[in-house]
Amino acid sequence: MSTAPLRGLLTGRPSVLSVGADLFTQALAEQGVAARTVQWQPPLPGTAADIARVLGDRRRADANAQALRRMLSAGAELVDVLPASVALGLQPGTFLHAGPPIGIEAASGPMRGALIGAVLLEGLAPDAESAERALWAGRTDDGLTITLDPCHHHGAVGPMAGVVTASMWGFVLRDPVHGGTAFATLNEGLGKVLRYGAYGAEVIARLQWMSRVLGPLLQLAVRRRASGAGPVDVRAIIGQMLQMGDEGHNRNRAGTMMLVREVVPELLDAADALPPGLALTDVADAVRFCNGNDHFFLNLVMPACKLALDAARDIPGSTMVVAMARNGTDFGIQVAGTGNAWFTGPAGIPDGLYLGDFGPTDANPDIGDSAITETGGIGGMAMAAAPAIVRFVGGEVADALAATLSMYEITLGEHPAYQVPVLGFRGTPAGIDVSLVARTGILPTINTGIAGKVAGTGQVGAGLVSPPAQCFTAALAALAALVPAADVPDRPAADVGRAR
Amino acid sequence: MSTAPLRGLLTGRPSVLSVGADLFTQALAEQGVAARTVQWQPPLPGTAADIARVLGDRRRADANAQALRRMLSAGAELVDVLPASVALGLQPGTFLHAGPPIGIEAASGPMRGALIGAVLLEGLAPDAESAERALWAGRTDDGLTITLDPCHHHGAVGPMAGVVTASMWGFVLRDPVHGGTAFATLNEGLGKVLRYGAYGAEVIARLQWMSRVLGPLLQLAVRRRASGAGPVDVRAIIGQMLQMGDEGHNRNRAGTMMLVREVVPELLDAADALPPGLALTDVADAVRFCNGNDHFFLNLVMPACKLALDAARDIPGSTMVVAMARNGTDFGIQVAGTGNAWFTGPAGIPDGLYLGDFGPTDANPDIGDSAITETGGIGGMAMAAAPAIVRFVGGEVADALAATLSMYEITLGEHPAYQVPVLGFRGTPAGIDVSLVARTGILPTINTGIAGKVAGTGQVGAGLVSPPAQCFTAALAALAALVPAADVPDRPAADVGRAR
Repeated sequence: MSTAPLRGLLTGRPSVLSVGADLFTQALAEQGVAARTVQWQPPLPGTAADIARVLGDRRRADANAQALRRMLSAGAELVDVLPASVALGLQPGTFLHAGPPIGIEAASGPMRGALIGAVLLEGLAPDAESAERALWAGRTDDGLTITLDPCHHHGAVGPMAGVVTASMWGFVLRDPVHGGTAFATLNEGLGKVLRYGAYGAEVIARLQWMSRVLGPLLQLAVRRRASGAGPVDVRAIIGQMLQMGDEGHNRNRAGTMMLVREVVPELLDAADALPPGLALTDVADAVRFCNGNDHFFLNLVMPACKLALDAARDIPGSTMVVAMARNGTDFGIQVAGTGNAWFTGPAGIPDGLYLGDFGPTDANPDIGDSAITETGGIGGMAMAAAPAIVRFVGGEVADALAATLSMYEITLGEHPAYQVPVLGFRGTPAGIDVSLVARTGILPTINTGIAGKVAGTGQVGAGLVSPPAQCFTAALAALAALVPAADVPDRPAADVGRAR
Repeated sequence: MSTAPLRGLLTGRPSVLSVGADLFTQALAEQGVAARTVQWQPPLPGTAADIARVLGDRRRADANAQALRRMLSAGAELVDVLPASVALGLQPGTFLHAGPPIGIEAASGPMRGALIGAVLLEGLAPDAESAERALWAGRTDDGLTITLDPCHHHGAVGPMAGVVTASMWGFVLRDPVHGGTAFATLNEGLGKVLRYGAYGAEVIARLQWMSRVLGPLLQLAVRRRASGAGPVDVRAIIGQMLQMGDEGHNRNRAGTMMLVREVVPELLDAADALPPGLALTDVADAVRFCNGNDHFFLNLVMPACKLALDAARDIPGSTMVVAMARNGTDFGIQVAGTGNAWFTGPAGIPDGLYLGDFGPTDANPDIGDSAITETGGIGGMAMAAAPAIVRFVGGEVADALAATLSMYEITLGEHPAYQVPVLGFRGTPAGIDVSLVARTGILPTINTGIAGKVAGTGQVGAGLVSPPAQCFTAALAALAALVPAADVPDRPAADVGRAR
């Protein structure tokens, strides 16, 4: 920060702080007057009254401090690997999905594709056509009711379409500090995979192998590790991966290797006691599968972040965001001070790089629960820790640094365990504040994969995207409506923008 | 770079380029004259005549271009794991060591400790006392002649003391472009280890286990990999580790994980065909050993760099450094244009952070062949790729960036495969030029471990160190003496410093 105006004060020479556009500063500079521009922009349109009201809430400071403290202190231990039927009590016919609630009629291509695949996986329809018919009818040909429900309503998170069914295996993480539990399925890898909306025979066969071989082997390893050296500390691995060029959303290379490194020796030690029907060649296949998928660890980062944010839920007066999630049609956020309400707007199309011959016209709107990583202070918030990510999502390294720096403007704190080496080990920007977003007009940066919009296509690219502003204006309105009457201010609401 | 003086030329207003100290620039600025300081310092003392002579060598430009091209294009494939007796034809009684040639009488504590341990490992003496006596006598009690010889004279490199004996197993790397071969032993891990001069019973037992279990298992895996998917591409892994916060000398975390990830599936597939006497529990031990040592991959980075630099040896007229190595007493360099001559000076004490209660008074002078990494364009040259390293060697992140930037001043090019993300994927500074070092007075930055000076202590810290200037002035004098008479200049030698 320039100290020119301060020096002006000390020397008695004139000095000026210029707010907003820099024409004035330039004019002063040409006349030899020390001046410095302070960035400023007006709040999001139409929010001035709500901002004033929320800023007057005497509960806010303490509530946000508590929300932030709970979020930053949460642990994340990998305690088990289980089928969703056991971990979440999911019944056949119940299909969890990413993002805020949605019905089949509003679902985008990749969401429909993933649901079709999930119906096939569960053996509830003989082919894709009858699976889709069952989804629209809300019941299978055998009369089983089909229910769609957000992952977030069941203590789970799912990347991209995020579809979870009873037979899918996943990681069970526990927060030893606050006692929460979170679940995410095992990551399938890249290319034609269910979460990107593909549902061909190879997709279903891979998911079946994951339930029959990969899940049970990981369960063996994770349980041995937990009862031996103690559970794998996912929070610690996330801290380390940020020192190794990962940002935890679109880049999980180091994290994946650190996880596999914990798992392999347990499987070798248990070679004489493998689950029934499994042999050492299955172990080799499982290790190759995990090693071959640099995103494997994403499905541990996500529930780790969910644990931290769930610990910060339901704190009256807090304006901190506790979930950002997209179902491929709508982007939704939840806030600590507004319970389980979703504030939604249309999901945008990410701006990024495309695979092969794909281009922006092939892209589905933003999809997945994986924005829980940004909500938790990593992913797009930690771009500066992963400069190599620009080769995957586009832009220059300077953009990655700038993205992280701008996120400090809309967050309540810095994560003590998640640090950015190149910023002198500064903690990542953590705890998105609805009121700061409204006051600055700066929206969170989300670093995400891009699904093809046609059901069955798979991934078409990766890039950056922001939530629609209306998620935040709607949340702000709800927060404003909850401000105790005694705190509602009288003063004019024109000065609620935020200089920085 | 400021364009102020250029603007001055265009506008007709006075402008000044000020070389060296900035007093003059300040005086001009106070009078409103555009001025810019160009950094400049005189060449290394006493080198002006030699610099002028070397700069006049008409072979130099082409010779350096050729040396650089050969270095940058060299490959590094992991083709085998073998005992040194087989890979290098080492006989019992021959002891390779790091750095330029040295006798036992001049050896420092850690070098003596490592040699004592090596005599014990080879079974040539019953205890440390008689081992040391044999080393001083040059023969064992049984009459076997003891020979000390640099690793570099045998196509090998060794970290720290770098002692290699017939029974030690190591990696065999091959450069498929130029056909070279290089060898390094398996890394023992941290703490009390032979390469840091420790020689207790646990050190010898670990080395015996490495020869009996680890070496044969790695041989199995590496040979399977080479004959299957093809040999592990060490150059490619080095390129990737620089994207993951490693600089390849003092930080090898990502590299180690990437290596282990290649090895493990091969061992799992070969579970039914393990070497005689070895079982799956040995595989588990081996995997845990490699995983537990974040420096394991250093012993692949070093021979990879040696391959590249050996490809650039023996090019008349080239002033490029092809080896920097320390034996704990002397620092020595070799240059492409001066054959196998070593140019030496006293090794310095690294400036860094110390483990536990150790401090600078416990430190041995700089030791090890591992400065081959800096010679090859990584390690201390690539500090900017590994900002987290400052937690290990001291300093601030800005120092790491500055270290790499300053190294471009003394190098001939940028490495196309080794890139620094935070510098916009700029290639690392590669190919240290003796004449640039002499002209700028900037010495290479080496990022290294610190051995305890008392034999048997082990590692006491890690930090940064530079070679003594006299290595470069002596090399320059030798290069000057080799300049063809027709190229020897007449002109005065006072203007050979280098503005930057």
